[in-house]
Amino acid sequence: MSSTQFQVGCELNYNVASQGAFIFNVSVINNGFQRIVTESFVTEPPLPVFESRSPVEEKRHHRFLAQPGLLKVRYSAKVELMHHRQLPELVPQVAPGDLPSEVLPYLYPSRYCESDKLTRLTQHEFGKYPPGFTQVTAICNYLRDNIEYLRGSTSPSTSAYDTVTERAGVCRDFAHLAIAFCRALSIPARFVSGYVINLEPPDFHAYFEAYLGGRWYIFDPTRLSPQTSFVRIGTGRDAADTSFATIFGAVQFTSMKVIMEYIDGAPPEFTTDAISTS
Amino acid sequence: MSSTQFQVGCELNYNVASQGAFIFNVSVINNGFQRIVTESFVTEPPLPVFESRSPVEEKRHHRFLAQPGLLKVRYSAKVELMHHRQLPELVPQVAPGDLPSEVLPYLYPSRYCESDKLTRLTQHEFGKYPPGFTQVTAICNYLRDNIEYLRGSTSPSTSAYDTVTERAGVCRDFAHLAIAFCRALSIPARFVSGYVINLEPPDFHAYFEAYLGGRWYIFDPTRLSPQTSFVRIGTGRDAADTSFATIFGAVQFTSMKVIMEYIDGAPPEFTTDAISTS
Amino acid sequence: MSSTQFQVGCELNYNVASQGAFIFNVSVINNGFQRIVTESFVTEPPLPVFESRSPVEEKRHHRFLAQPGLLKVRYSAKVELMHHRQLPELVPQVAPGDLPSEVLPYLYPSRYCESDKLTRLTQHEFGKYPPGFTQVTAICNYLRDNIEYLRGSTSPSTSAYDTVTERAGVCRDFAHLAIAFCRALSIPARFVSGYVINLEPPDFHAYFEAYLGGRWYIFDPTRLSPQTSFVRIGTGRDAADTSFATIFGAVQFTSMKVIMEYIDGAPPEFTTDAISTS
Amino acid sequence: MSSTQFQVGCELNYNVASQGAFIFNVSVINNGFQRIVTESFVTEPPLPVFESRSPVEEKRHHRFLAQPGLLKVRYSAKVELMHHRQLPELVPQVAPGDLPSEVLPYLYPSRYCESDKLTRLTQHEFGKYPPGFTQVTAICNYLRDNIEYLRGSTSPSTSAYDTVTERAGVCRDFAHLAIAFCRALSIPARFVSGYVINLEPPDFHAYFEAYLGGRWYIFDPTRLSPQTSFVRIGTGRDAADTSFATIFGAVQFTSMKVIMEYIDGAPPEFTTDAISTS
Repeated sequence: MSSTQFQVGCELNYNVASQGAFIFNVSVINNGFQRIVTESFVTEPPLPVFESRSPVEEKRHHRFLAQPGLLKVRYSAKVELMHHRQLPELVPQVAPGDLPSEVLPYLYPSRYCESDKLTRLTQHEFGKYPPGFTQVTAICNYLRDNIEYLRGSTSPSTSAYDTVTERAGVCRDFAHLAIAFCRALSIPARFVSGYVINLEPPDFHAYFEAYLGGRWYIFDPTRLSPQTSFVRIGTGRDAADTSFATIFGAVQFTSMKVIMEYIDGAPPEFTTDAISTS
Repeated sequence: MSSTQFQVGCELNYNVASQGAFIFNVSVINNGFQRIVTESFVTEPPLPVFESRSPVEEKRHHRFLAQPGLLKVRYSAKVELMHHRQLPELVPQVAPGDLPSEVLPYLYPSRYCESDKLTRLTQHEFGKYPPGFTQVTAICNYLRDNIEYLRGSTSPSTSAYDTVTERAGVCRDFAHLAIAFCRALSIPARFVSGYVINLEPPDFHAYFEAYLGGRWYIFDPTRLSPQTSFVRIGTGRDAADTSFATIFGAVQFTSMKVIMEYIDGAPPEFTTDAISTS
Repeated sequence: MSSTQFQVGCELNYNVASQGAFIFNVSVINNGFQRIVTESFVTEPPLPVFESRSPVEEKRHHRFLAQPGLLKVRYSAKVELMHHRQLPELVPQVAPGDLPSEVLPYLYPSRYCESDKLTRLTQHEFGKYPPGFTQVTAICNYLRDNIEYLRGSTSPSTSAYDTVTERAGVCRDFAHLAIAFCRALSIPARFVSGYVINLEPPDFHAYFEAYLGGRWYIFDPTRLSPQTSFVRIGTGRDAADTSFATIFGAVQFTSMKVIMEYIDGAPPEFTTDAISTS
Repeated sequence: MSSTQFQVGCELNYNVASQGAFIFNVSVINNGFQRIVTESFVTEPPLPVFESRSPVEEKRHHRFLAQPGLLKVRYSAKVELMHHRQLPELVPQVAPGDLPSEVLPYLYPSRYCESDKLTRLTQHEFGKYPPGFTQVTAICNYLRDNIEYLRGSTSPSTSAYDTVTERAGVCRDFAHLAIAFCRALSIPARFVSGYVINLEPPDFHAYFEAYLGGRWYIFDPTRLSPQTSFVRIGTGRDAADTSFATIFGAVQFTSMKVIMEYIDGAPPEFTTDAISTS
């Protein structure tokens, strides 16, 4: 199993008007496949930062209180990535009755993924494909052929139900619609935010994972970046669960920079293999 | 701390056309406040039933495969209920920045609770109340004064965004709208399905819990049943997470009976105290 | 030009609790193509009935006030139908800039036909067809292939935006979606209610007309009845404009019967010609 | 009856990429209350312009074809305004059964005014007011107290159903919601675009008229401009019917200027009288 090393990070700038409470979800997940080599989370001015971890979803949160004034948050990590890899034809759908209890929530509709309203359409478009990795790939192909990647075409309240008809969106809209299709086929699917290489301009990315063959496999219907570079930050039902910052108080977001660089190891590649980092 | 004993249960009848996989969430939660004295889950014909448990939400699932033919499922339990009780004025809102990581998901919008679209309205209607138990009580009062309890007025796809304008619904719609209001005030809130006394006709009930003062407190904007009788089955973000049966296959639901009886102990009462069973 | 004669009519029963004002739109349009031979509109008990006519849309209204008690309304007409007939290839789209002012409203979105939200999808699905009759026929074919005719699957608030995704509906839903597609292609389209032969059970029907080659041509994506039998009652932007009864007061609708019979002349036929009765 | 004279007009600039067909609705209505003294509609480069008139709604359209290149459209008119004036208490609701046929369409829901979904809420909020001018004034007061005028808070697809919950909008959103409330009370209401004095920045304005006491009376829930200055351009069911330009072809809108000046006569005033110009 080959590995790759990446430098990831972000710098976020705020103007705090009154006292503000911040909860960040920008730090990457640390597990057997995605290993943090070094990491730092710092604020300017320096503030006491508390770290907590979401029990089910592996997400990590950094929290602190900030006083009025300018605030800069800087996260930086060196990450080593390895992948579980499988041939697509060896990745079957899990019989719904056999899904683990902790996976069931990803089968149900959520704020931006109204799978309950897409049943007929999903059967009509994807019912003909063999269940498993191939069927989810067919979903990704459908999105590439039918939805236009168009910056500014959607808003934070756009959901899969909108995108399926309005036919345009950005990475989060692509992920939402693909997730909704999966769930309508009884395939659990979750939203993932991450650092990925080669985005222009650099930004956080959104993609999804489908639960197949007993694991969460990575899919990206936007095809904007080689999947073996995807470093996971947060997972959840949809974008509602994985925003990079939840802020309470009168705070103005002023600017942002995202860093993602390949350092060493197996070069990132677009792959048709089934890959997983969990 | 006084206790009360209840007999709860249900009988569900199905007609299975092809093989069907069933996941039931009708069994009650067993914890320090809600203790199962005796319990049985049986099928006719008899089938091997597997029990699993959702790690975060305390929900229990019973699963099995059924062959074509008639199927009856019977759940029955004797439950002893105790309550954590507090004076409303001693139950404050938790500062959002201090919420535990496992509670954060209940702050975000979900399929049927689009709190993100209700921010202004919520501030306009409830911003004037003191934060904490009183504010959530104001939400329940608003629902009683503004929403008509009307069987048949809504469908499974009705959400809080509909109910706030259409002004009619059943217990799940009341819970969804109340939850959406809470989240728009940065109060975590979750949907609860349960057995409750005196429903006419007997049925499963839906209500909600708000996370205040470090606990999940029970609220029921429908006021159809005394809260101290509420025996919890499942909790989740909204109704999408807590349906009593998730079924895969060609299966027809034919009839249902719900049982809920007071046996012994402190009689069920409508209370204005803050009560909790978790 | 051959003609056909039909007997059409309906019987509507109400229970009037308090005084009720009724406006009916069940009588057929009378023009050069659709000629009323004999006609009667009667109520039991007998009431003074006033007739008025909508200036633009040729619709006729019968109105009256009814006192508390049972009320029966009976409309009956013998109608002679002729058709303007044209070969599909000779029916072009009218350049949008040349549309008459009175036709422009049928180009804009309406309550149940949100053409403004379907632009991309419409281009994607129908942009490849030659403009004119062929393109509208392609829309009808798409509906037959993609939308299931399913009684009870929709409600009075269902719109084209729902149907395009939920993929099921009844005649009014088919008409709404087809109209929305037409408008998104800059083809004016209007909703028509009518008496048509062979519906099972007998009922009012909904179909649509597209403005092509300087006329309103008849289309029916449901294909439930031969188009040369379509006797027009009302036209409008969508179903909001053409309900058969608008009632003010506490009135209960108890039952209804619709009559449509072929009497004489050229037998009704499914035709691929372009036909028009206006 | 006193009169006032205004200078109104606009200048619209476009960049035409391919041939474009333009239909403008920027010229004012000419009738007994609103008299055009002088008027011009010119294009640069000069093009043959055709004028047509919508039969029911009194709207006037200017049309032309433009070749690739820069295009400037200049409309200018001197208008004399008089008002039918009535005391509010003498302006009753018309019994719905007595409404003229040509007014009925303004009773039904439209694209941006889903009155069918607001019945209960409307009764709850406005059922207590006496029918007629007072009730429509109560609707305007409700909007002022509950909806925030906030530029940029809405999009072209925002409708009354959104605004009633999201509680923010611009003039067209205010008009849409007020119209929807009126229709839910069986009061016909229509959308009006016009030139009005003192807007900052100068722009077209949107307000509404309700059909009461046999006439269309002017209402403006935004209260941004004195009503006696309102010079009517177009009326329709909602904004879908009254956009100032309908354009077919690849055309870019580059800039716009709106002119509205008081010249002579009775000075514009905010009035609590019922006033009408039709």
